[in-house]
Amino acid sequence: MLVQDDEVVGAGFHPAVGEPHAEVFALRKAGDRARGATAYVTLEPCRHHGRTPPCTEALIRAGVRRVVVAALDPNPQVAGQGVARLRAAGLEVVLGVREPEALRQQAGFRALITRGRPWVVAKYAMTLDGKVAAHGEGNGAVSSTAARERTMMWRNELDALAVGAGTVQADNPALTTRGVPDGRDPRPVVFDRQARSDVQARVWREGAVLVTGLDAVATAYEGAGVTVLRAADLPGALHGLGQLGVSSLLLEGGPTLLSAFFAAGLVDEVRVFIAPKLLGAGLSPLTRPAQAMAAAQPLRDVTIEALGPDVLVTGLLSEIPRL
Amino acid sequence: MLVQDDEVVGAGFHPAVGEPHAEVFALRKAGDRARGATAYVTLEPCRHHGRTPPCTEALIRAGVRRVVVAALDPNPQVAGQGVARLRAAGLEVVLGVREPEALRQQAGFRALITRGRPWVVAKYAMTLDGKVAAHGEGNGAVSSTAARERTMMWRNELDALAVGAGTVQADNPALTTRGVPDGRDPRPVVFDRQARSDVQARVWREGAVLVTGLDAVATAYEGAGVTVLRAADLPGALHGLGQLGVSSLLLEGGPTLLSAFFAAGLVDEVRVFIAPKLLGAGLSPLTRPAQAMAAAQPLRDVTIEALGPDVLVTGLLSEIPRL
Repeated sequence: MLVQDDEVVGAGFHPAVGEPHAEVFALRKAGDRARGATAYVTLEPCRHHGRTPPCTEALIRAGVRRVVVAALDPNPQVAGQGVARLRAAGLEVVLGVREPEALRQQAGFRALITRGRPWVVAKYAMTLDGKVAAHGEGNGAVSSTAARERTMMWRNELDALAVGAGTVQADNPALTTRGVPDGRDPRPVVFDRQARSDVQARVWREGAVLVTGLDAVATAYEGAGVTVLRAADLPGALHGLGQLGVSSLLLEGGPTLLSAFFAAGLVDEVRVFIAPKLLGAGLSPLTRPAQAMAAAQPLRDVTIEALGPDVLVTGLLSEIPRL
Repeated sequence: MLVQDDEVVGAGFHPAVGEPHAEVFALRKAGDRARGATAYVTLEPCRHHGRTPPCTEALIRAGVRRVVVAALDPNPQVAGQGVARLRAAGLEVVLGVREPEALRQQAGFRALITRGRPWVVAKYAMTLDGKVAAHGEGNGAVSSTAARERTMMWRNELDALAVGAGTVQADNPALTTRGVPDGRDPRPVVFDRQARSDVQARVWREGAVLVTGLDAVATAYEGAGVTVLRAADLPGALHGLGQLGVSSLLLEGGPTLLSAFFAAGLVDEVRVFIAPKLLGAGLSPLTRPAQAMAAAQPLRDVTIEALGPDVLVTGLLSEIPRL
């Protein structure tokens, strides 16, 4: 966003990998009015020739006077050099303004660029006695309409959405984004070690990924246009998703998939809806590992929100990569 | 509380059954300044000769002009007659001011007088994956110091505190109120159908109640000064506690006791601490009944509070008896 005398003279966002960065769109809109303006950016401007030319040079050329940066770019090709270049050219640079919000927004990008794998967000809805479903039943509705609407916003925001073979078999979900204006669908990712899911299931739409074992027979899926990703274990699967460009993964599976990710230490963030009702017997969101209470994993940056009748608690299990 | 020209001229509270009511203390303090004053009372003034003389007459005699009442008294001997008497004597009466708060404060009194049994409050602390303890472990600390302090406030407020034989055996708890200035200890109530708990356990202090089966051998407890309450089932046990004058019972037991009360439909209110951490395998607060998600019991009057690092969610499963 470019601001001149308290007036926004240009704004932009980065639409997709390979497209111009937000700075370029904002500068185009501002035209001559960029001269002497202040630029507000969530991510440090790039200074390297990647898929697009460096934003530092565009800002300098346009005569921008001051750049306010929320967070540095962890990409080793930028990593403070963008800021250094702007300062060398005589621009004033302010760093770290609203950094926590920016980091959360950029968690996927940062995970992918520094660890080569997506940021993994586990989402589940449970009753106030900690049950995600009753025994011997499909996924009955645990939480409210408001919670489902919020989930749709997340589906729109995150790159991919993961479920296990059990969920595909039990619910045959479409895993699309519904009710979000101009919403986009996440890539469906099905973890199915034995590649036994019905090839006719609704989940196998364009962009779908089957994550399966190294020696599973998956020719039927390949024939149906599904990307088949073979991995020996979950870290390998996440690495493969990273190579497909998936920077953020929303886990919406049942206890089996959630527990596997959690036990492997691969959940980065959790978002939990708690419905104010009591069930009794039922399925727990996590069933492993077996460990002492003192070893339970604490969340950081916890948020608590009343959402319709429910409570939404979110928090991080990993640190968002900074630089 | 008595107010004259925006100044509090007298205040009081009802210290215990058989003692004078709050109105009497407030009138004593106000003396002549009660004339023309407004009285604010949480409960409708009594108009019958019970263990104490009627408060309506005291208010009228003192020349109080206006009475603001939060809630009517469900005692059939009062039940609106107190208000009627005041109005007949020419006093202005305003009803229902801050009634919800008053009802919650009086839940125990109201349950005992209308149903002959205590108001039952289930309290537990669980992780964000719904576990109250790890498997094969005693009660590890789930929640924070702030949550434990709040629990101590509740122990000070409620009449009695219930645990099961398993908790006595595993933890040998004292079940006292600690860290509350001028705090009082609740009566410890142990549900132990077979009367097998160690007679030397710390819980058997003055006022303790053993709730046991009709034919259990409990002479050792009787010899130790413990009140032995024999009941065929939980409703019978609660009725017996009501006869002992217990108007409110805080359930602090483990999943066995909690589940028994919940499955019998005998939990009136829940207070749940949720610690923002994930455990994995562990014990669930409730293990029965087995029922469909659609049959889960919704809470009413839900409150959500951030308490230290934890979230406290409370709500009612029964309606507080009004009149």
